[in-house]
Amino acid sequence: MTLGPQWISSGQVTFTVWAPLRERMELHVVSPRDAVYPMDKNEQGYWQVTVAALDADARYLYRLDGGEERPDPASPYQPDGVHKPSATVNHAAFAWTDADWRPPALADWIIYELHVGTFTAEGTFASVIPRLPELRDLGINTIELLPVAQFPGDRNWGYDGVYPYAAQNSYGGPHGLKALVDACHKEGFAVVLDVVYNHLGPEGNYLHGYAPYFTRKYHTPWGEALNFDDADNGGVREYFIQNALHWLRDYHMDGLRLDAVHAIFDQSAKPFLQELHEKVTDWSAQQDRQVILIAESDLNDVRVIRSRDRGGFGLETQWSDDFHHAVHTVLTGERDGYYADFRDIRDVHKALTDSFVYDWRYSVHRRRYHGSRAAECPPEQFVISLQNHDQVGNRMFGERLSKLVPFEAQKLAAGVMLLSPYIPMIFMGEEYGEETPFYYFVSHSDAGLIDAVRNGRREEFAAFQWRGEPPDPQAAETFAASKLNWESRDTGRHGALRAYWRELIRLRRTCPALKNLSRENMKIVCWESENVLYCKRWTDSDVVAWFANFSPQPQSVALDRRDGQWVSLIDSYHGPWSGPGSSLNNETGFAETISLGPYQFALYQRKL
Amino acid sequence: MTLGPQWISSGQVTFTVWAPLRERMELHVVSPRDAVYPMDKNEQGYWQVTVAALDADARYLYRLDGGEERPDPASPYQPDGVHKPSATVNHAAFAWTDADWRPPALADWIIYELHVGTFTAEGTFASVIPRLPELRDLGINTIELLPVAQFPGDRNWGYDGVYPYAAQNSYGGPHGLKALVDACHKEGFAVVLDVVYNHLGPEGNYLHGYAPYFTRKYHTPWGEALNFDDADNGGVREYFIQNALHWLRDYHMDGLRLDAVHAIFDQSAKPFLQELHEKVTDWSAQQDRQVILIAESDLNDVRVIRSRDRGGFGLETQWSDDFHHAVHTVLTGERDGYYADFRDIRDVHKALTDSFVYDWRYSVHRRRYHGSRAAECPPEQFVISLQNHDQVGNRMFGERLSKLVPFEAQKLAAGVMLLSPYIPMIFMGEEYGEETPFYYFVSHSDAGLIDAVRNGRREEFAAFQWRGEPPDPQAAETFAASKLNWESRDTGRHGALRAYWRELIRLRRTCPALKNLSRENMKIVCWESENVLYCKRWTDSDVVAWFANFSPQPQSVALDRRDGQWVSLIDSYHGPWSGPGSSLNNETGFAETISLGPYQFALYQRKL
Repeated sequence: MTLGPQWISSGQVTFTVWAPLRERMELHVVSPRDAVYPMDKNEQGYWQVTVAALDADARYLYRLDGGEERPDPASPYQPDGVHKPSATVNHAAFAWTDADWRPPALADWIIYELHVGTFTAEGTFASVIPRLPELRDLGINTIELLPVAQFPGDRNWGYDGVYPYAAQNSYGGPHGLKALVDACHKEGFAVVLDVVYNHLGPEGNYLHGYAPYFTRKYHTPWGEALNFDDADNGGVREYFIQNALHWLRDYHMDGLRLDAVHAIFDQSAKPFLQELHEKVTDWSAQQDRQVILIAESDLNDVRVIRSRDRGGFGLETQWSDDFHHAVHTVLTGERDGYYADFRDIRDVHKALTDSFVYDWRYSVHRRRYHGSRAAECPPEQFVISLQNHDQVGNRMFGERLSKLVPFEAQKLAAGVMLLSPYIPMIFMGEEYGEETPFYYFVSHSDAGLIDAVRNGRREEFAAFQWRGEPPDPQAAETFAASKLNWESRDTGRHGALRAYWRELIRLRRTCPALKNLSRENMKIVCWESENVLYCKRWTDSDVVAWFANFSPQPQSVALDRRDGQWVSLIDSYHGPWSGPGSSLNNETGFAETISLGPYQFALYQRKL
Repeated sequence: MTLGPQWISSGQVTFTVWAPLRERMELHVVSPRDAVYPMDKNEQGYWQVTVAALDADARYLYRLDGGEERPDPASPYQPDGVHKPSATVNHAAFAWTDADWRPPALADWIIYELHVGTFTAEGTFASVIPRLPELRDLGINTIELLPVAQFPGDRNWGYDGVYPYAAQNSYGGPHGLKALVDACHKEGFAVVLDVVYNHLGPEGNYLHGYAPYFTRKYHTPWGEALNFDDADNGGVREYFIQNALHWLRDYHMDGLRLDAVHAIFDQSAKPFLQELHEKVTDWSAQQDRQVILIAESDLNDVRVIRSRDRGGFGLETQWSDDFHHAVHTVLTGERDGYYADFRDIRDVHKALTDSFVYDWRYSVHRRRYHGSRAAECPPEQFVISLQNHDQVGNRMFGERLSKLVPFEAQKLAAGVMLLSPYIPMIFMGEEYGEETPFYYFVSHSDAGLIDAVRNGRREEFAAFQWRGEPPDPQAAETFAASKLNWESRDTGRHGALRAYWRELIRLRRTCPALKNLSRENMKIVCWESENVLYCKRWTDSDVVAWFANFSPQPQSVALDRRDGQWVSLIDSYHGPWSGPGSSLNNETGFAETISLGPYQFALYQRKL
């Protein structure tokens, strides 16, 4: 029993909606013809009706107990926004060309986080397609789309979505998204969609009228908690499990990024995340497809990614923000908010060796112990980044790293991330040092809500009032100012940086020792007072080692032991990357004492 | 740093209290002398002061920020009730006589759940002691005390306690409890204390003034949730972990029964229950002691008892109410409330084979799927009962099973429970078919609260209004009527029932096949339409089998296969147990077709 309107073989459409507490439900088709169809309820509270010979793109509402009319919670499309009728979509009608597509293995993923509205001037799915060849050339092989579920208005990060099944109308709707995914597959990209299963947005959320989607048992930072373990949670789980399958089946997504799983409160003996993973795994096994579920989790809890037989939810991988925070604080010196928990290069060292810096360590910011030891989990179970929509956009002025640290430090950070054994994620524009901000922006229509969002933003940055007012999240200019300045990508240092990223990615994908994502085959030495890291990685056939000087001063460090001759593979100080020229030894090897310039990053390979 | 007043070697007393948000804390000793001592704060928000030459039983309060004076959250004794000063207790002064005590292994436990206030006319710790020999004679080896933490007034089940470290004054206080535990050990009983770590009672709770003990993140059925994962939860965890160690160390408890762990909300990567178990295990290993933690859990979640390396909290064992509900509904035909989820003898069969009847099965009462598969866990990880304070006391009229089912059915139920491989728990008086009720009772002093409790009770039983008003929980008579009629224990059928229980326990503890708590060495056959169970259990050297007819009619069932000659070990129909005389075959064996009388229970052993 699939939710929403479904085309059945005979050219008929079956509508299914969950409304267990309603006494009477009717389907009101409002166009192209106007007609009302009474629906039948089953024991689980699902209502159905089958309508003959309906067009795709017919508009409809559900009439609840003979009174109010509301869009479909599982609406596949909201052509006129969140408050207007839903539209039918015949998913089978799309002409996919990706029959032979197989995504790369997770261990090979290089993820590019992309916000459709600001990636291009047009801000549409279609306008992403012409840029794919350049991303492929860079070495990216996975596109992660910020949420595209229908949100109010046409400007939003995506986390205010209220129709989890409907691709945003202003981005190009269902057809546009399918065309983008199809094009991605043609160009060799896996596509991951960010989905939000922990809350619904504040405007256009009509779910309360249908069923007990929410519970008062828990509070989330964004209002009412979705009901995953209270009475009647079965329909809520089904709604989101079918949602996951919907994106995987009807949109050919290769994976889903689950937003803020720490706000999915669930005490049951089979938590929702575990059930979701079971159902997705069962489905993908039937389809002979690889599907990756990525959790965004603020829990630092290995339970999320542990296998089910070891008491875990079984998700394939999860974001690990500790790496970001550690690198960011060392390079920027910032200590506000959650950065207060990160001190110095030892945290970068720990993030590289153990994944979680906070593994049941006391967090001053959280005022509690936090996290669990993650070293038991393979590195591919952690997605790391130097920037992402949150870390950039949740700053008052939305500054990217390019505005916060020197050019050489950007290259250093890229080297450390890309030549680590974790799955790297690049925030759109990061690869060429984009300098436009990425602000927080919305386009609500409710005046009270707009004020609340504005005030919330102001309060959030009250401590920074001396720096001025945060940009107005509701203003169209705030959104416009957040768009990439794509044309700058090949100019001056931008072009050099992009070429450097390309070369780092190429090395990651070709050197056996870098392709081998293993903690065991890695040794890191940390010189605390010098702020220098040395990382050696190896396989039976290959040994590489990189040096990274996180300090703004030149540093010299002595290595205990040298083994053999080494060849330079990449050096951030070299000319092609707009570097100042390297002070390191030439290709014949490196000395016992290594002298590194400020922020210098250099990779060597042992001569065999 | 031990909470509360602690005697240190030099005859001085150090007072420690957690009050991280207070600017100033003073110890006010109110008797025997009146003196105020300023306290010093450490980095974690703990305040301390050491006072010389203080008597045991000195009275004291803490003065908060120079204003209000409150009893100690870790008060060892509240001689004048919940609102008055705390009293010091020198735990080292008690003359323990149990140096050689070693509790029986968990697998051998026969637990007796005992409410001190109603077990005897006196309702004190001391008055329990003279009855211990009779319980030992019955075969009981573990006493589980309902909570004794100081509650308001002198009548309470114990779940309104507000001083988790203080033994109830009206029961005899710290000295009385120690004397009882010491006597229990002398008589061969392990002692388990019921402790409440999920909420505090509504009257006399002064914890808010000290520290963030509570969080608004979650709701419990009993009000504010304790803070186990929010900011500053470290002090809350420490408070309860030290509480556990306090009962184990200063009162020589052999185990703790953790009340309603499903209301301990905790999303952290190391949940409180796991940390508690780690700390208790570390401590007991140092002491070379066996300590058992028993969870009461409404989650049917094996995570509670799974080992830590398999993602569990690691608790030794937990209550499994499904066995109770299955047996109760089959014998009484009741279908109200949670009994709606239990249907027929198949649920008894499942409870015996798999422990949890609800192992991710849909619960009509809960309106959701519930539970996890437990068959991976050994049977000693489940404590089962036919009655307990909740199942009896939460009935409007507090009826015990003796008032609800025929005499023969009581014997049947006892046989099934005691000859199962689970840990049996007997509710005080059950062993002789006590007929007095066990009501819900309180003795609050706040008029508003008393009304609220009365009204709550009435609302709870609104559906049963046709049966009359529930007894007034605040009335002294309600409490008095709940006391055991101990003198009836040897009269008529009471005496026969008690002798029958004694014999069942003896058989459980002596037959190798019954002592061996294993699912693998057990086979159960269920005749659904006849309501008959057959259970065979074995070891290499012993084979036993019991028949249980849950039907009020005679039933005949055919066994597929007979092997050898069988000897009757016990038959509920026999004369000594006031039975009607057995219709089963005599000692030479049982026939291929077995004819059982209504509720007949019979155990056989194979002749070797």
